[in-house]
Amino acid sequence: MAVTQSRRIDFPQVDMAGIVYYPEYWDMCHRFFEGSWPQIAKIDYPTLIGERKIGFPTVDNKATFHAPLRYGDVVKCRLWISKIGNSSVEWQYRYFNQGGDLVWSASVMTVCVDMDSLAPMPIPEDLRAGLAATKAEGGDE
Amino acid sequence: MAVTQSRRIDFPQVDMAGIVYYPEYWDMCHRFFEGSWPQIAKIDYPTLIGERKIGFPTVDNKATFHAPLRYGDVVKCRLWISKIGNSSVEWQYRYFNQGGDLVWSASVMTVCVDMDSLAPMPIPEDLRAGLAATKAEGGDE
Amino acid sequence: MAVTQSRRIDFPQVDMAGIVYYPEYWDMCHRFFEGSWPQIAKIDYPTLIGERKIGFPTVDNKATFHAPLRYGDVVKCRLWISKIGNSSVEWQYRYFNQGGDLVWSASVMTVCVDMDSLAPMPIPEDLRAGLAATKAEGGDE
Amino acid sequence: MAVTQSRRIDFPQVDMAGIVYYPEYWDMCHRFFEGSWPQIAKIDYPTLIGERKIGFPTVDNKATFHAPLRYGDVVKCRLWISKIGNSSVEWQYRYFNQGGDLVWSASVMTVCVDMDSLAPMPIPEDLRAGLAATKAEGGDE
Repeated sequence: MAVTQSRRIDFPQVDMAGIVYYPEYWDMCHRFFEGSWPQIAKIDYPTLIGERKIGFPTVDNKATFHAPLRYGDVVKCRLWISKIGNSSVEWQYRYFNQGGDLVWSASVMTVCVDMDSLAPMPIPEDLRAGLAATKAEGGDE
Repeated sequence: MAVTQSRRIDFPQVDMAGIVYYPEYWDMCHRFFEGSWPQIAKIDYPTLIGERKIGFPTVDNKATFHAPLRYGDVVKCRLWISKIGNSSVEWQYRYFNQGGDLVWSASVMTVCVDMDSLAPMPIPEDLRAGLAATKAEGGDE
Repeated sequence: MAVTQSRRIDFPQVDMAGIVYYPEYWDMCHRFFEGSWPQIAKIDYPTLIGERKIGFPTVDNKATFHAPLRYGDVVKCRLWISKIGNSSVEWQYRYFNQGGDLVWSASVMTVCVDMDSLAPMPIPEDLRAGLAATKAEGGDE
Repeated sequence: MAVTQSRRIDFPQVDMAGIVYYPEYWDMCHRFFEGSWPQIAKIDYPTLIGERKIGFPTVDNKATFHAPLRYGDVVKCRLWISKIGNSSVEWQYRYFNQGGDLVWSASVMTVCVDMDSLAPMPIPEDLRAGLAATKAEGGDE
């Protein structure tokens, strides 16, 4: 089941052209990623990386920008998992504005690593179960 | 001919895992993009958007993260143009560290717009000439 | 009456020493400033600057850092107005962590300006009323 | 003797009002601080914090914003040390634009700490000598 979160566009995210600076979409993407962990795996990301020493850095990402975001807009992000490998997890992100228009769609491949060595490791079973439950079923996209 | 620029990794770009936070790769990408205009088209980007009211916002981007960057590393970026359409320009970016290792490769599609309306417009001829000259010839990749 | 808001410390705000990078305190400060307008003057800041063309840029600021903030901490900000002049407004900020410890205190002087010219202007009466009501009474500090 | 450095204002530092977002002055301040170490003490800051495990976090800062900075401006920063205690160092920053106008002045108090514990420590003698040489003599301000 997809995870849905919202965030208001703040002043510092907007550039002099009056629209959100595109690397900010990726910054929000990481914040939505982090924010999804309690719902996905009943753990928050600070605990995951700080205590369990497990992280999911990005190895590939791609995005399409459908429409601009402006100051004061509210972004609703829907995220879900599209693929799970031994170490890898592919995430899908869709941003909608307050009018319900799709403004951004992205796909991010992450790899489960040991945070001390940054070496890849198999996804632990307790996390895998939650990640698998976030996979879209038919029609979820 | 490709454009080459360098930038040192500063403290605020590094996250608590000791590596560059991935949206910072995109932020640097935009800064390299901007920095390339004087060489590409003999105009700086502030003049292009501020006086000529022409910009090139991103509509699609994708990247692969080959190896981490760390505090104090020096990124050498090589960028070139891979496609030019009526309004669209596709840019290629390759980041290397001070040891010469490829650490990031990205492709960004931009569209030439009128900055007041954000509506697409044909690429002006004087800019097109410079952009065309930045296209890779055989072996430049 | 003071305005209270909360915000979680996210991953990108934390530096490689594991504590919040100090310019991020100022970035949060601006976001709390913005977030306070609906309560202070029944208007949101995007409308204030975008439609009424009135802004309050910073001319002086100072801060003391009492204790570090870390990833996952929740900052509670209490802000109030300490002085109102013809054009100027002085804001006080106090950040507390989730344990109730004071971690940061700051004072910021802003000036009411016309956003088109950036020239100072007298604070409009309808805004002044709300700002005055945010002044601390005895003991509010 | 004061240390002088320059940096161009890039697009992401500018807000929708067309002027540099004020926390970016503090972000530049930190980058100029870092950049001054090779000249001050013949060591770069990444080596100082990464290998010698010594840092200088900010405990107090204050600034006055004299005039706005805009996209494409070049900031020249002059920094010097105004006070050195057992553990504390007070830094002065003055930013000038390409026309030579003073646009920002700031004072930052830092404390020498062990980076592992973040506990204050006396400034090591080899660093102290360089810091002392960066103190303004009469008229340097």
